[in-house]
Amino acid sequence: MQLFIGHILSETEAALSEDESWHCIKVLRHKAGDPITMMDGKGSYYSCTLLDPNPKKCILAINTVDFRENTILYDLHIAIAPTKNIDRIEWFVEKAVEIGIREISFINCKNSERKIIKLDRIQKIVESACKQSLQRYIPQLNELADYTPFIKNIPVGTHAYIAHCQTKDLPHYTTLVKPAGKLLFLIGPEGDFTMNEVTLAMEHGCKELSLGANRLRTETAALFVCNAMSVLASL
Amino acid sequence: MQLFIGHILSETEAALSEDESWHCIKVLRHKAGDPITMMDGKGSYYSCTLLDPNPKKCILAINTVDFRENTILYDLHIAIAPTKNIDRIEWFVEKAVEIGIREISFINCKNSERKIIKLDRIQKIVESACKQSLQRYIPQLNELADYTPFIKNIPVGTHAYIAHCQTKDLPHYTTLVKPAGKLLFLIGPEGDFTMNEVTLAMEHGCKELSLGANRLRTETAALFVCNAMSVLASL
Repeated sequence: MQLFIGHILSETEAALSEDESWHCIKVLRHKAGDPITMMDGKGSYYSCTLLDPNPKKCILAINTVDFRENTILYDLHIAIAPTKNIDRIEWFVEKAVEIGIREISFINCKNSERKIIKLDRIQKIVESACKQSLQRYIPQLNELADYTPFIKNIPVGTHAYIAHCQTKDLPHYTTLVKPAGKLLFLIGPEGDFTMNEVTLAMEHGCKELSLGANRLRTETAALFVCNAMSVLASL
Repeated sequence: MQLFIGHILSETEAALSEDESWHCIKVLRHKAGDPITMMDGKGSYYSCTLLDPNPKKCILAINTVDFRENTILYDLHIAIAPTKNIDRIEWFVEKAVEIGIREISFINCKNSERKIIKLDRIQKIVESACKQSLQRYIPQLNELADYTPFIKNIPVGTHAYIAHCQTKDLPHYTTLVKPAGKLLFLIGPEGDFTMNEVTLAMEHGCKELSLGANRLRTETAALFVCNAMSVLASL
């Protein structure tokens, strides 16, 4: 199924985003009258007919709506320090969306090797992965935030965890984490979190944990968390 | 810890491979007398001293050996159809090694978009990921094999599974798979396995299964299996 991302204008009309309009008209050469399936990223697929094939803003007539509640048992938020090589973050994002995630934040840590991130590009990867894997809910992406304010603003009611290798014999994630409710995992940069960062997180309610014996790269650890929550939730 | 891959020559001497010798001498500029940690990929780390800094074949004096048994409860073999974009296979291999895998095969399926694969390059990724993640056992890589002979040669005693999307309501992997013994998972190409391929696999003892509701890319599905076995084995 070919999906396009858009938003509704009224009960009967919808519009595609600028990128999607271009792709729909200039690349896929859709014409007025063609059937188009539009997703709003909030659980609904709309069966539509292309009314106005404007390559900057396609207008669609909505025929039927198919809404589904998000049935994932947990609300997974991963905060990750961007890697030096941005490809590694990009594939993490693509795979995390395929497996299932609600929110991705980027955090600027003491040992971060990358201090800027282009959210536009990451947003496109998110949308493309949603369409590819038929996800109905588009995850939220947040701008790069400094570590300290990020930690101080963890919402009340979040089960927050910090995965690091600074201390031996940390509790294994399977003994601490239940795949339910609001979950936040902090994943550090290539040089790991500093002990000061770990301490700050714990002062703000985060629990430290181990993801197992293997030394994982930043992006491997982050994706492992997505996979592990999916597995634990399906038991 | 900086690791080099090599092999033992006698009880007291070892040699690095050609690539590793070049890296050790020409890139890292090690000199005779320097301490070197060598791994054989079969469970042992050797504390050595560099005897002959030959950039084509470094010779090391072995001081001590530290051997550890492979404690993973399962012996995971993934047979995957190479993706059109080889980067996707390369990152699967890197991540699978980090998380833990024993053997990787490449299979040539009806819908495969790639019919050749350069094993040398993949072997380097395997070795690099082993060193990075401190894995002591180097997984085995097999040459691209045609689907039918591969299926006909699945070793007796293997718990073999085929993940596909050709049939709805397949049993969920968590109901079928125990993370123990010899496990083989078949992961199909971008266009999925054909029903003939699924039937052949089942005639040869494979069980069909679903990896969940999401439509996963080839490489995402393969890595999901590695992650899932790791999670299930740690419960």
